Amino acid sequence: MRRIHVIGIGAGDPDQLTLQAVKAMGDTDVFFVLDKGAEKEDLVALRRGMLDAHRPDGAYRVVEARDPRRDQEADRVAYAGAVDDWRGRRADLYERMIADELGAEDTGAFLVWGDPALYDSTIAILEDVIGRGAVAFAYDVVPGVSSVSALAARHRVGLNRVGRPFQVTTGRRLSDEGFPEGVDDVVVMLDARQAFQRYADRDDLDIYWGAYIGTPDEILVSGALPEAAGRIGRLRAEARARKGWIMDTYLLRRRPRD
Amino acid sequence: MRRIHVIGIGAGDPDQLTLQAVKAMGDTDVFFVLDKGAEKEDLVALRRGMLDAHRPDGAYRVVEARDPRRDQEADRVAYAGAVDDWRGRRADLYERMIADELGAEDTGAFLVWGDPALYDSTIAILEDVIGRGAVAFAYDVVPGVSSVSALAARHRVGLNRVGRPFQVTTGRRLSDEGFPEGVDDVVVMLDARQAFQRYADRDDLDIYWGAYIGTPDEILVSGALPEAAGRIGRLRAEARARKGWIMDTYLLRRRPRD
Ligand SMILES: C[S@@+](CC[C@H](N)C(=O)[O-])C[C@H]1O[C@@H](n2cnc3c(N)ncnc32)[C@H](O)[C@@H]1O
Ligand SMILES: C[S@@+](CC[C@H](N)C(=O)[O-])C[C@H]1O[C@@H](n2cnc3c(N)ncnc32)[C@H](O)[C@@H]1O
Repeated sequence: MRRIHVIGIGAGDPDQLTLQAVKAMGDTDVFFVLDKGAEKEDLVALRRGMLDAHRPDGAYRVVEARDPRRDQEADRVAYAGAVDDWRGRRADLYERMIADELGAEDTGAFLVWGDPALYDSTIAILEDVIGRGAVAFAYDVVPGVSSVSALAARHRVGLNRVGRPFQVTTGRRLSDEGFPEGVDDVVVMLDARQAFQRYADRDDLDIYWGAYIGTPDEILVSGALPEAAGRIGRLRAEARARKGWIMDTYLLRRRPRD
Repeated sequence: MRRIHVIGIGAGDPDQLTLQAVKAMGDTDVFFVLDKGAEKEDLVALRRGMLDAHRPDGAYRVVEARDPRRDQEADRVAYAGAVDDWRGRRADLYERMIADELGAEDTGAFLVWGDPALYDSTIAILEDVIGRGAVAFAYDVVPGVSSVSALAARHRVGLNRVGRPFQVTTGRRLSDEGFPEGVDDVVVMLDARQAFQRYADRDDLDIYWGAYIGTPDEILVSGALPEAAGRIGRLRAEARARKGWIMDTYLLRRRPRD
């Protein structure tokens, strides 16, 4: 029976790999690497560096594929629909890769950024492939250090206050729906539009922001949102122009009223 | 200058240690181990096993202390107040341990369960100690695999649905405040009272539950809440009676209305 590991590799620092991830990499025959476009070349390079470090034997194959791109325009109009379509195309691709590249007794692996449970579609796509019934395999998931944990560690803050909840959401949701009800601590991911700028006049909010966390390009900013927002906007634009892409996450924290 | 590492060690599986955690353990002179009472002996044993595995040189000291217990009665009446008091007592203890046991050029470490950013007070207490000004040190935080990531990996599910938020909360909050507004996915920690039982008749909810995740005692249950709730209640009571303590976490997931 074919086997597949879905391996969380941490969010940028190669030392965020767990021992369990290193072991799973060790018994893998075929690594599937999905290139998401020019701007993500650094991320593919990081994965290759991990293979060089932890598989010095070289007794594995790497199968690279170009990840089907979402239709950005459809995306804007109907997010859920566009994603379904894209997931279908990704399921086609994964099914083909597994069927064509993984021998009947082989073990394959997907090296997933951060933690596979967080805003990543690998598990859902593998379930789609299994559901179609054309190719059979067993798979397991190796949890990883998420960018959220990495952000909190670099700022040396907790995600929650004592006995209180926190929420993890997307930039799109924050800008469409506003600051969530019932929580004072909100982590925002996948924010292409700096949704926090909408709250830049709220002097009861602190922000803990990080870009390229764990990599040599890491940038961290924290402070009261009215002071920090402008600075983050400038640093973000500069970094994005310099590198061609950006990956950032932040915690918005409402200060207690007293 | 004294240095301290706050090291996330994963939530039960010793292989959830990251390479970064192993490196930080490697340059530590003094490990501070806080024993939280008889029921947590297994957890102290796990930490000792990690030291045996990753510090075969033995060139370190372990300082054990009994963690001040919260006043359970006060706790029930005024949660925030009781915690403050307990934090004060913990700050006293940490201050004393650092001042007495860590030489001026030494590096100390706290081995923190899961990820230090999640329902853990080590960082807050170190900040309290620094604020008091009696003992000076620099510290860093090494992120870890949280029990939440471990839960999701074992069940092979994502924490969020595509483009949607999720919330992390406590059993106390879930039972006092009800199912949170605006989210369909809720992770519950620190639940001594099986708050999910309140929703056992809700046939739009699925549960993904795990106890002692990553350890040899691991128990996993998932399914529609009305079917799973009774089973979890029984397994939980049995395990608790057998081991004398339990540590469990779960994801409650609202199925989309169609
Ligand atoms: C598709 S999601 C994948 C998240 C990933 N599974 C994780 O656990 O971090 C990508 C988003 O994660 C965040 N992210 C991932 N790595 C990051 C890093 N090194 N620095 C800052 N943000 C990061 C950004 O918000 C980015 O938009
Ligand atoms: C004080 S909190 C610490 C959480 C920890 N910092 C983390 O990242 O997982 C303790 C709670 O974490 C959850 N937990 C920790 N380890 C667990 C495990 N191995 N299995 C199930 N739940 C766990 C339980 O909900 C428990 O009540």
